[in-house]
Amino acid sequence: MKSFLNKIRSRWSVSSLCVGLDPDLEKIPVHLGKSLQSIYDFNCAIIDATHDLVCAYKPQIAYYAALGAEAQLKMTIEYIHQRYPDVPVILDSKRGDIGDTAEMYAREAFVRYEADAVTVNPYMGGETLTPFTNYKEKGVIVLCRTSNPGSGELQALNVGSHPLYLEVARRAVESWNANKNILLVVGGTQLSELKKIRQIVGDDMVFLVPGVGAQGADPKEIVKAGANSKGQGLIVNSSRAILYASVGIDFASAARKEALRCVESLKVI
Amino acid sequence: MKSFLNKIRSRWSVSSLCVGLDPDLEKIPVHLGKSLQSIYDFNCAIIDATHDLVCAYKPQIAYYAALGAEAQLKMTIEYIHQRYPDVPVILDSKRGDIGDTAEMYAREAFVRYEADAVTVNPYMGGETLTPFTNYKEKGVIVLCRTSNPGSGELQALNVGSHPLYLEVARRAVESWNANKNILLVVGGTQLSELKKIRQIVGDDMVFLVPGVGAQGADPKEIVKAGANSKGQGLIVNSSRAILYASVGIDFASAARKEALRCVESLKVI
Repeated sequence: MKSFLNKIRSRWSVSSLCVGLDPDLEKIPVHLGKSLQSIYDFNCAIIDATHDLVCAYKPQIAYYAALGAEAQLKMTIEYIHQRYPDVPVILDSKRGDIGDTAEMYAREAFVRYEADAVTVNPYMGGETLTPFTNYKEKGVIVLCRTSNPGSGELQALNVGSHPLYLEVARRAVESWNANKNILLVVGGTQLSELKKIRQIVGDDMVFLVPGVGAQGADPKEIVKAGANSKGQGLIVNSSRAILYASVGIDFASAARKEALRCVESLKVI
Repeated sequence: MKSFLNKIRSRWSVSSLCVGLDPDLEKIPVHLGKSLQSIYDFNCAIIDATHDLVCAYKPQIAYYAALGAEAQLKMTIEYIHQRYPDVPVILDSKRGDIGDTAEMYAREAFVRYEADAVTVNPYMGGETLTPFTNYKEKGVIVLCRTSNPGSGELQALNVGSHPLYLEVARRAVESWNANKNILLVVGGTQLSELKKIRQIVGDDMVFLVPGVGAQGADPKEIVKAGANSKGQGLIVNSSRAILYASVGIDFASAARKEALRCVESLKVI
């Protein structure tokens, strides 16, 4: 079976757009209803409308966990694997815990949900990422510099001559990446930092970049600041702007239109 | 309804022991079987055998998530609330994400599972803790200095004149605690650091202290290093040493015996 990173590299011929599957029952079109099944129906419609435009899908587990919609999350991932097997799935769960517990979280992501990659939090140290990276074919996407307004509070603190997020980036490349399956989360809302991190980690490291769409980051600028010397190396995520482009019966075609717009913006000459 | 911290303060008249409910189907007594129901039966037996010795229970959600045992987790928490309403429940999930998503995780912990407190990760900044602390009656337990061997890799990095974990402790007290419902996770395996954090945060901050039992920390030394000037302020967690004190049919009475031993060790004259 193809590894997550190889799947991504193949899909870059399509685009570097990732669609976040964060279904909120208060926001999805009313004609779909308000049941847990509505979440699955919504996801499938979005996936069918965008599968030929994306390099990956990224369900955010919190949206399912809040409602007890684990079955719908699992069915959504199965739907992608079965219908569109070339498109990998990133489970966005930002897990992080001591070894034995991290092993359980790795099972959650890779065995239970059969995700191709998972997001993780580095605060407890590289040792706690090993239970994830031991799944060699899977991607392990480490929070480095996040896209939220207050993200700098700890991440931008200076540790010696450079900020904490650059230390995370450096360790990710030099110490934690024995199985060559680590990626980094680098928010698209801080372009100068995105650029610095690319300089530190070199061409091979792939970034998951949130912040496009509702959070306001500009896709063109992200590519200029964050792509590697081949113009690649990015998975650029948009969730709400695509999912809720329309809340009418045309939601799926509106989502496609917004995804297409985003794909075009990601093409930098 | 009593807040989490008030429940804890009342329970300190019993002990400062917290029992971690981390049921592993490969470790629980074989006579209980290997079904998801076995997890619930195991938890109930442990709870019935220890409820009069503890200040709290702490289910670790990863053990349930790996198996799809959300229903058993929910039933376990309900069991504690109904049978032993004075004993609060900490959901150990170490969540952390941007605002909208953090709000979903807060709903997971406080609405879906009706936990009294939740553990959270501060790497994304204090702003991302607000959706949790907005539930004023609930406890929000922020990772500060964790108990795992590699925990110092980022947490002990110097940010100016002091390590990152002390900066987290300082911010928790000075900036993040508007609703007075923040606690800190401070591992019992680093006694000198536990002592330093107590000096920084003063008497009112409560610590959740993992590391006793299987991880090797000494309860007596933890109390000496970490208790406040009244000899209080701690929730000392033990999981595996109590849960798996015996894997025979006597597992519940063996768990009680081990819990009693731990409660005695926590009494410092």
